[in-house]
Amino acid sequence: MAALSLFLDVPLTREAHELLYAYMEDPSPDKVYLDCRGCRIDTGEAWVCPTVLRTLQLVAGDPTQDYEQLPVCGLPEFTRAATELAIGRESQAILENRVRILQPVGAPLKARGSGVRDAIKADATVDIPGLGMGFSSILAFWCRLYLAGGVQTVGVTGALRIGAEFLRRWHCQHTPGPARVYIAVHQLDFFQGIFHDAGFVDICPYLYWDLERLDVALEDFLEVLESSPEGSIILLHGPEGTGLTPRQWEEVAQVMERKHLFPFFDIPGQGLASGDLNKDAWALRHFVARGFELFCAQSFSRIFGLYDEPVGNLTVVARDNVALTRVRSQLEKVAAALWGSPTCFSARVIATVLNNPALRSKWKQSLRAMAEKIMLIRAKLKEKLRILGTPGSWEHITTQLGTHSFMGLLPVQVAYLMKHKHVYLHTDGQVSMCSINSHNMDYVAQSIHEAVVATMLGLSQHPEHCKGQ
Amino acid sequence: MAALSLFLDVPLTREAHELLYAYMEDPSPDKVYLDCRGCRIDTGEAWVCPTVLRTLQLVAGDPTQDYEQLPVCGLPEFTRAATELAIGRESQAILENRVRILQPVGAPLKARGSGVRDAIKADATVDIPGLGMGFSSILAFWCRLYLAGGVQTVGVTGALRIGAEFLRRWHCQHTPGPARVYIAVHQLDFFQGIFHDAGFVDICPYLYWDLERLDVALEDFLEVLESSPEGSIILLHGPEGTGLTPRQWEEVAQVMERKHLFPFFDIPGQGLASGDLNKDAWALRHFVARGFELFCAQSFSRIFGLYDEPVGNLTVVARDNVALTRVRSQLEKVAAALWGSPTCFSARVIATVLNNPALRSKWKQSLRAMAEKIMLIRAKLKEKLRILGTPGSWEHITTQLGTHSFMGLLPVQVAYLMKHKHVYLHTDGQVSMCSINSHNMDYVAQSIHEAVVATMLGLSQHPEHCKGQ
Repeated sequence: MAALSLFLDVPLTREAHELLYAYMEDPSPDKVYLDCRGCRIDTGEAWVCPTVLRTLQLVAGDPTQDYEQLPVCGLPEFTRAATELAIGRESQAILENRVRILQPVGAPLKARGSGVRDAIKADATVDIPGLGMGFSSILAFWCRLYLAGGVQTVGVTGALRIGAEFLRRWHCQHTPGPARVYIAVHQLDFFQGIFHDAGFVDICPYLYWDLERLDVALEDFLEVLESSPEGSIILLHGPEGTGLTPRQWEEVAQVMERKHLFPFFDIPGQGLASGDLNKDAWALRHFVARGFELFCAQSFSRIFGLYDEPVGNLTVVARDNVALTRVRSQLEKVAAALWGSPTCFSARVIATVLNNPALRSKWKQSLRAMAEKIMLIRAKLKEKLRILGTPGSWEHITTQLGTHSFMGLLPVQVAYLMKHKHVYLHTDGQVSMCSINSHNMDYVAQSIHEAVVATMLGLSQHPEHCKGQ
Repeated sequence: MAALSLFLDVPLTREAHELLYAYMEDPSPDKVYLDCRGCRIDTGEAWVCPTVLRTLQLVAGDPTQDYEQLPVCGLPEFTRAATELAIGRESQAILENRVRILQPVGAPLKARGSGVRDAIKADATVDIPGLGMGFSSILAFWCRLYLAGGVQTVGVTGALRIGAEFLRRWHCQHTPGPARVYIAVHQLDFFQGIFHDAGFVDICPYLYWDLERLDVALEDFLEVLESSPEGSIILLHGPEGTGLTPRQWEEVAQVMERKHLFPFFDIPGQGLASGDLNKDAWALRHFVARGFELFCAQSFSRIFGLYDEPVGNLTVVARDNVALTRVRSQLEKVAAALWGSPTCFSARVIATVLNNPALRSKWKQSLRAMAEKIMLIRAKLKEKLRILGTPGSWEHITTQLGTHSFMGLLPVQVAYLMKHKHVYLHTDGQVSMCSINSHNMDYVAQSIHEAVVATMLGLSQHPEHCKGQ
């Protein structure tokens, strides 16, 4: 064999988590990392909801568990509960079977001790009125396997990836012109890799946060939508925390409807913005109610405190049950070649909590408490900056909602924070509010103050070139 | 909006598990499914190793657990233990740091309560002699994060997929000519989708089982290797159960070395063939000892009985530590866009069992017992066919090893079994031995007997056209 490595020209990459690596390389004892993903308690450790923790132990010790492999599309109880959580139990789309596949009375699925998982038993509570008469036998068969329109995925990344892989293959072939994906500029790091690896080449960023007005850049967003090619895919990230009003969402929906744009929602923390699960899903439900066909990727890590067991759900809303069934069959094929079948443990825990009224109620209380804790962190930080007399308005810290927030810092201020204060955050000034706690709050506020004061003299307050960074 | 669905021309697919769906559609109470994936007990239910079950409950109740998100490449204890299981703790490649990345004395990774997982703490037992002097600072930093050459993946499918995605991008650009992948014909269903979705177009099947000689088709395999373009990727599936002798494996390795072919091992059930973990890894370890750079995808579902928590490992063996570090950084990037970070639960359970000598020893006993049970099923089935006087030789049932086996049935006989006896198996006559138990053994033997008798008159016993099916 040759003495040289085959992998000689493979470059070293650190793309996956560049900011984290920069932080970890820093030997300073003062360093602070302001991009922690999950919800955290005051010690900086991961928040774990007590109800979820108790359920987790119950599920692990459940003697009736069979340890059988899940179907490729996951645990039906989980996907159904997740889908209902996102679009609402009373959604017209559910009543019209546009997110839930019909379940006929099926043939016996177990025979001669063959041990194949009985896909129906897990879904005994679904009350769907038998098989529609016009269905072909193939469709009838699929109906037996597909009990919800959702697909359980490995984390929200997995949900975005299988959605993207499907869309590249089918949606893009269907619409005229090249398929383009629009991703908010502050989410490019995370989403671009997923859509690029799924085969998209035409990925355009859109501006989301206006550094001049210290508010959401709605006008720019609407302009981008108006000028986008028909059939483009629009990533709508974290609608619960965008700060758009219902009326503004209606405007967005109107343009997207007229331009036939495809909405791909990403809901990372339903309930963590306002503390109300329904309120946080308003935008998604509005799109569903208007009759959009759409995808929605949900994350459960943050809201259930299960960071080590990432589980996601891709909800498909289609025009009718036939379209849904077909799309779901293709998504199954995509998932089969990505991970085979998903892991069960956290899906079982989440399904147990969501489907049990007592547990669900307790979990909702914890979630609301966490949302309120985040609001309190915002208020405290704003107050600290006010006391320090930091120049500028910091009202936007409390008008935004959810785990993440734009600090309204210019790139040069962010660079100052990293270089001189060992405080690590994204160039656009986005911060995870849960990264701030009583141990680092004073240091962070003081650092922001210093960065603003040190840089403001050398800069006009709103330089044109910073817009959109 | 348009009244028609965007997804109007999406076809329904059942490619993911065609045989299973055909079985599930069959209303007959006699039906038997002979392609169950995992190990099963006599009732047809999934085999769960008692040691693993107890560890699972311990891990779930562990109060020291932090529920933090795993690094993208997974739990270091798990990947290290998995890699050592595959290539052996005393492997020259481990001693030369060609599968395990150097761990320098790093900077403090936690500061100001930021809660970022300390990547080093979990790996405190690794005894590597500090940072090599010639390393650049970037590499030194990577070393801190990468503690084993393996990447934890979601099931073995995930391991194959990230390996394939990486190889398409790098290995294929490096070697002259088009990159071709060779997959054993009986594994095409499973592997083709993975490699196709990862972007490979030139996928060639090779013959593995010779229906004439009722033995492994070594000659044909060697011919394929000889005629393959340099740099092709060869999937070596289930080397523990192929039935090739060490001398024959040496021949394969010689040709692959000479032709610069890239070995991609897939080890679905180490220990389930001979009952001996080391013996079953002989072929892989031989390739490593010869100095091959290779990938090895390991599955843990079967050998740990954790079918609902699929976890896999992709072991990378490189020429040196620098190449390994680079490849691993690219694999991390691929995984970040596939699932973000893997789930932790089963990895923690498996790492606990493998790293604790008492638990490991008990688990090995259970595994050996399961391997012996499979050998017994083989012996019984052969005996039943002998008693029934089924024409032909059935010696090959007991000369093969592992969970899966070629029955030596012609496609026409398989078709007969499915159509007339409701016995479902692959067209090539491959059967999962664990699908056969005391409840269906008589029926399966009788059905095979009928199929052979009914079809033998209309056929010459070894028609040329069946070869390679």
